[in-house]
Amino acid sequence: MTDRPSLTPLVASLPATVPFVGPEAQERARGRPFRARLGANENGFGPSPAVVEAMRASTPEMWKYCDPENHELRQALAELHGVAPENIVIGEGIDGLLGLTVRQYAQTGDPVVTSLGAYPTFNFHVSGFGARLVTVPYEDDRESLDGLLDAARREKACIVYLSNPDNPMGTWWEAEDILHFIEALPPTTLLILDEAYGETAPASALPPIDVSRPNVLRMRTFSKAYGLAGLRCGYAIGEAETIRAFEKVRNHFGVNRMAQAAGLAALKDRAHLERVVKAVGFCRQRLSAIAEAHGLKALPSATNFVTIDCGRDGAFALRVLQELAERDVFVRKPMAPGLDRCIRVSVGLEAEIAIFEAELGPALAAARSAS
Amino acid sequence: MTDRPSLTPLVASLPATVPFVGPEAQERARGRPFRARLGANENGFGPSPAVVEAMRASTPEMWKYCDPENHELRQALAELHGVAPENIVIGEGIDGLLGLTVRQYAQTGDPVVTSLGAYPTFNFHVSGFGARLVTVPYEDDRESLDGLLDAARREKACIVYLSNPDNPMGTWWEAEDILHFIEALPPTTLLILDEAYGETAPASALPPIDVSRPNVLRMRTFSKAYGLAGLRCGYAIGEAETIRAFEKVRNHFGVNRMAQAAGLAALKDRAHLERVVKAVGFCRQRLSAIAEAHGLKALPSATNFVTIDCGRDGAFALRVLQELAERDVFVRKPMAPGLDRCIRVSVGLEAEIAIFEAELGPALAAARSAS
Repeated sequence: MTDRPSLTPLVASLPATVPFVGPEAQERARGRPFRARLGANENGFGPSPAVVEAMRASTPEMWKYCDPENHELRQALAELHGVAPENIVIGEGIDGLLGLTVRQYAQTGDPVVTSLGAYPTFNFHVSGFGARLVTVPYEDDRESLDGLLDAARREKACIVYLSNPDNPMGTWWEAEDILHFIEALPPTTLLILDEAYGETAPASALPPIDVSRPNVLRMRTFSKAYGLAGLRCGYAIGEAETIRAFEKVRNHFGVNRMAQAAGLAALKDRAHLERVVKAVGFCRQRLSAIAEAHGLKALPSATNFVTIDCGRDGAFALRVLQELAERDVFVRKPMAPGLDRCIRVSVGLEAEIAIFEAELGPALAAARSAS
Repeated sequence: MTDRPSLTPLVASLPATVPFVGPEAQERARGRPFRARLGANENGFGPSPAVVEAMRASTPEMWKYCDPENHELRQALAELHGVAPENIVIGEGIDGLLGLTVRQYAQTGDPVVTSLGAYPTFNFHVSGFGARLVTVPYEDDRESLDGLLDAARREKACIVYLSNPDNPMGTWWEAEDILHFIEALPPTTLLILDEAYGETAPASALPPIDVSRPNVLRMRTFSKAYGLAGLRCGYAIGEAETIRAFEKVRNHFGVNRMAQAAGLAALKDRAHLERVVKAVGFCRQRLSAIAEAHGLKALPSATNFVTIDCGRDGAFALRVLQELAERDVFVRKPMAPGLDRCIRVSVGLEAEIAIFEAELGPALAAARSAS
């Protein structure tokens, strides 16, 4: 062993891993671009023109650091959600906030509960802080509220992660079920309720915002319905003391300055948001119809993607994905046993959806002939 | 004690602190804006017009996540520094990279060496991961290479932090001295060589880039000379295995998409960088002349700010700062004993420097009469 600085035993034990390979990396490996970028749950309908204008207008100001209190955006979000600014923390996307949350509550070996096949970046952070991941299988392609609850109680989990609507399956629970789940949870278990896809869900899926419980963090983002994934701006809503603890660990100047201007403009343009949410809904129907026209079953979705059951095992779905990639269509797929029979296709502009439509048949045929 | 999720003992022990109060927060507290924003070591000359254009052009693409490998920007930086892309990691500003570095190498109680009065955000991260800060006093307003070396050896430090040029004093060491320091350092101590102000320093202050040593990380940023503090984009240069370890802990999708476009454009416009570096040099002279015209001593500076010795103790310098703020001039000051006799004034456009010039005299008089 060379004489070099020692990584901590924990960090030394971690793999040098990327939770997701980006489409750009795949394009470089393939030597040609995708014609349809439908794999990353981005929102091809993009941000409001008013947001684009606000970002453009803010470019000459980019020599200044951000306001570390993100004051104006927190005010606007507080107004939107009917809470106080003290109930909101803004971070570098939900990804950043997930890492900070795990760091606050999980020590080495502590049990953290999530669903088997749920968001890999959360798992990355759990491993990254040495906590112990306890996974609960999906049931009928939904996260199992009963299973998560049992595991949280049994393990005395410090954190339980639940996304509603769910990624990667697109399914959801109604607010009532979520509320029962919250009430049944031990008060010492922190619930991370990841609502990244909240805006594209039926209103009935979102419990009222209630910031009285110290053990619930609701996470939202500008990456999905607002069409600003590249901006890196997400936020958590919670009880004031729980929110305040982020001040102990967050990177105060970490949110880029443009995020505040863009976020404010995005919140103002409700008409654009409504149009996008409608367009996402139509596109989900379109994707489902494409799947069914090819004899495949599309799962119901409350998100900006549709998960399609390819009707056989995981190996087959992987071949479908690969055959689509061969045809320059970028999609992703769930990897967990049972879920892995599916591919996951994000919404997008019709030009890209049409390419997916045209290539799905040939891709399926090629995958079948290879079986 | 309420029934609520428990913070880890480490996090519970941390204060909910902001390393710096932002000027926006001060403006809100004061109820009126500053006329001269000269406290945050920003670069009022701003980014290249080509960079502003690149940022504007990238706004419609902001619905896409960034390339998590930051491939193109790493390529361009590798070319600039004559290293391989494997020798570079890009992060959310140097602040973000400092946190990741501490997390990789420092465990609870491990000694980490820095100078007493050096960058508070680094200290924030050291405390945040429970490591033990060992501080070495400045000598003649420079970080003490001998002192840092002694402390690193004596303590068997896992990390030693050195900024060159230095913040908050603006002073610097020549490359030769830095090289001797590196050679004398135990190979198991990681040196974070923070060169945020590298571009505004004399070339003689920067050792050649050498990525053969596993225990040296050079940190650079687009926040200072490139005028892009609000962008949140910094990078570290180092030996490939040391750089690769960041993959274990970094937030892979954390750099906003615009940073890549802006960074590439910034690296291309060398003429703008040269103009800015010259303008920064002139502005330093201007600030020094203003200080001397008021009977104060300006410290030599290789940065984008000038540290001015107010000639009395820390309480007096604080009054000068407060009197400047009363007159709508935002500056900051070092807080450590010995350094605290100074205020720190960032470069900026002449309109703001002129306001500082006009207000310094009255502020000094008011501070003196209050003594």
